[in-house]
Amino acid sequence: MHELRKDPLLGRWVAVVSDSKSPDDYRFPTEETKETSCVLCPGREEETPPEIVAVREGDKWWTRVIPNFRPILHVEGDLGRKGLGMYDKMNSVGANEIIIDSPEHNRQPEDMGVEQVLRIIRLYRDRVADLEKDQRLRYILIFKNSGKGAGAAYSHPHSEVMATPIIPKLIKEELDGAKQYYAYKERCIFCDIMREELRVGERVIFETRDFFIFSPFAPKFPFESWIVPKRHGCAFQDITDSEMEDLSLMLFTVLKKMRRVLGDSPYNYVIHTAPNRIPRRNHWHTLGDDFHWHIEIMPRLVMMSGFEWGSDFYVLTTSPEDAAKYLREA
Amino acid sequence: MHELRKDPLLGRWVAVVSDSKSPDDYRFPTEETKETSCVLCPGREEETPPEIVAVREGDKWWTRVIPNFRPILHVEGDLGRKGLGMYDKMNSVGANEIIIDSPEHNRQPEDMGVEQVLRIIRLYRDRVADLEKDQRLRYILIFKNSGKGAGAAYSHPHSEVMATPIIPKLIKEELDGAKQYYAYKERCIFCDIMREELRVGERVIFETRDFFIFSPFAPKFPFESWIVPKRHGCAFQDITDSEMEDLSLMLFTVLKKMRRVLGDSPYNYVIHTAPNRIPRRNHWHTLGDDFHWHIEIMPRLVMMSGFEWGSDFYVLTTSPEDAAKYLREA
Repeated sequence: MHELRKDPLLGRWVAVVSDSKSPDDYRFPTEETKETSCVLCPGREEETPPEIVAVREGDKWWTRVIPNFRPILHVEGDLGRKGLGMYDKMNSVGANEIIIDSPEHNRQPEDMGVEQVLRIIRLYRDRVADLEKDQRLRYILIFKNSGKGAGAAYSHPHSEVMATPIIPKLIKEELDGAKQYYAYKERCIFCDIMREELRVGERVIFETRDFFIFSPFAPKFPFESWIVPKRHGCAFQDITDSEMEDLSLMLFTVLKKMRRVLGDSPYNYVIHTAPNRIPRRNHWHTLGDDFHWHIEIMPRLVMMSGFEWGSDFYVLTTSPEDAAKYLREA
Repeated sequence: MHELRKDPLLGRWVAVVSDSKSPDDYRFPTEETKETSCVLCPGREEETPPEIVAVREGDKWWTRVIPNFRPILHVEGDLGRKGLGMYDKMNSVGANEIIIDSPEHNRQPEDMGVEQVLRIIRLYRDRVADLEKDQRLRYILIFKNSGKGAGAAYSHPHSEVMATPIIPKLIKEELDGAKQYYAYKERCIFCDIMREELRVGERVIFETRDFFIFSPFAPKFPFESWIVPKRHGCAFQDITDSEMEDLSLMLFTVLKKMRRVLGDSPYNYVIHTAPNRIPRRNHWHTLGDDFHWHIEIMPRLVMMSGFEWGSDFYVLTTSPEDAAKYLREA
């Protein structure tokens, strides 16, 4: 079985697979399946792992959720936390699912209309709400890889779900950062950022009724954009029906704008929500007050070098102000 | 002028250039200079920014250090730390240099012999020792990008120096992690890791008289390898002449081994040393006791996806034990 290991210096968890790739697997990857034989396309449903849930209309499906073909995390088993000499490890318990975003291989959900984007967002919400019931799981990460340069394993439009028994390091850092700010200011940092960005204006991309999108002041990637709900809330899965409709409109619009400005460049997006098992509706100060769920969209236009990987310091070759202007005007 | 900005949530600094690239600059990059006209090759010395230092023998040079053609950080000016609304920024003060590793365009230093690797390591030491005198600079990062897939801007063998007025986030995290361990154990975590790895043996790649190289227990990249000096010390620039000779032998050997195992795959390496202005020779407990300089070598075999970028959680498709075995036996 795969295992999870903790880096003793940084406290970062990683997954180590039990069936190692050989050096040649990286140098000479096996021929990829041709576009004509995509296993995520309609007609090959029996070749995928057993479907978890789907949105159907008659005998046609609009979206499907299936377990990953080669999952890194497995639903069975206990956590099995233990030491190994001076190190720490645990079993790779969790879930690893693929959301097929569109029945059409060559058509992105946003090209199918707002309704299709809404179907996907509803599925995101349902998967988080379902998986958070599992007491062993601490975090549920929804993300999308679009394009080979963004690490996509399939060219068919899809998103992924990773439910982990630990809180990933970057999430923990965001929670800690937001908590520190709250301790100092007694206000949510995301609510403050939203107010500041609206006051200044130059990094705002646009607004809808319930959501706000902007270029962050100091992001990692050129053209990185964050979607933030106007109503304060730490958990994505608490989104209302009417907010989901509004979010579909926003995501639909920004993905179209990005394509107009950046062409078919690869991109990722990720939903950052609160960890599981957080008392969200407590009267006392809890995480619910200081964290604010959001979506980070990361166009993958530049190749990171040893500088970025060796320091976690990034060079923005397009300023957030200029990026926002291009996207606003698109 | 470019500026440095601080992410208010994570405390991470980034550099924002003043002359933004347009979206088309990413989509349709300008034709690259042909191999026959490399500006880092001998014969075109007058076209580079004025040389900082070089290793010469007669009228032939072995290595040259020049300022970056388009530096992100500039030597002139004061730090200019200031607030901007709720955000923080400062001037992009620092240094950004290119070390030309070899006079030969198509020959890596390790193919020229141990002597050439030693010339480069001496230059690394000299640049750090020189730049650390500048009181405005807090950190000096030496790194190498080899291959386009590792973010290399030139195909000519080269390394880079980035001297920054802040401590980059990843370095700060390593310092903090090592300090926490020291506070708990009263021992250096790197010294402990070295002892543990020698005891277990399965992640050891090899040893020389003064250095040790192994696959870390929970790294970011498959085949990532760390070189650690056996003598405890926090600052790379305190390396002795005899240790530099031994390090050349180690670096020469491991780069050869990596090529035998991974072919011409792109890679980065980075030297993690203590920040500047640290009282290194104090009697009381100082950073000198808990940090331990080292070199991290990162082969770039896999494309990172939204999962890694959105969570700082990594999937190792080759276990560190198997990676060490391949490299040990190469």
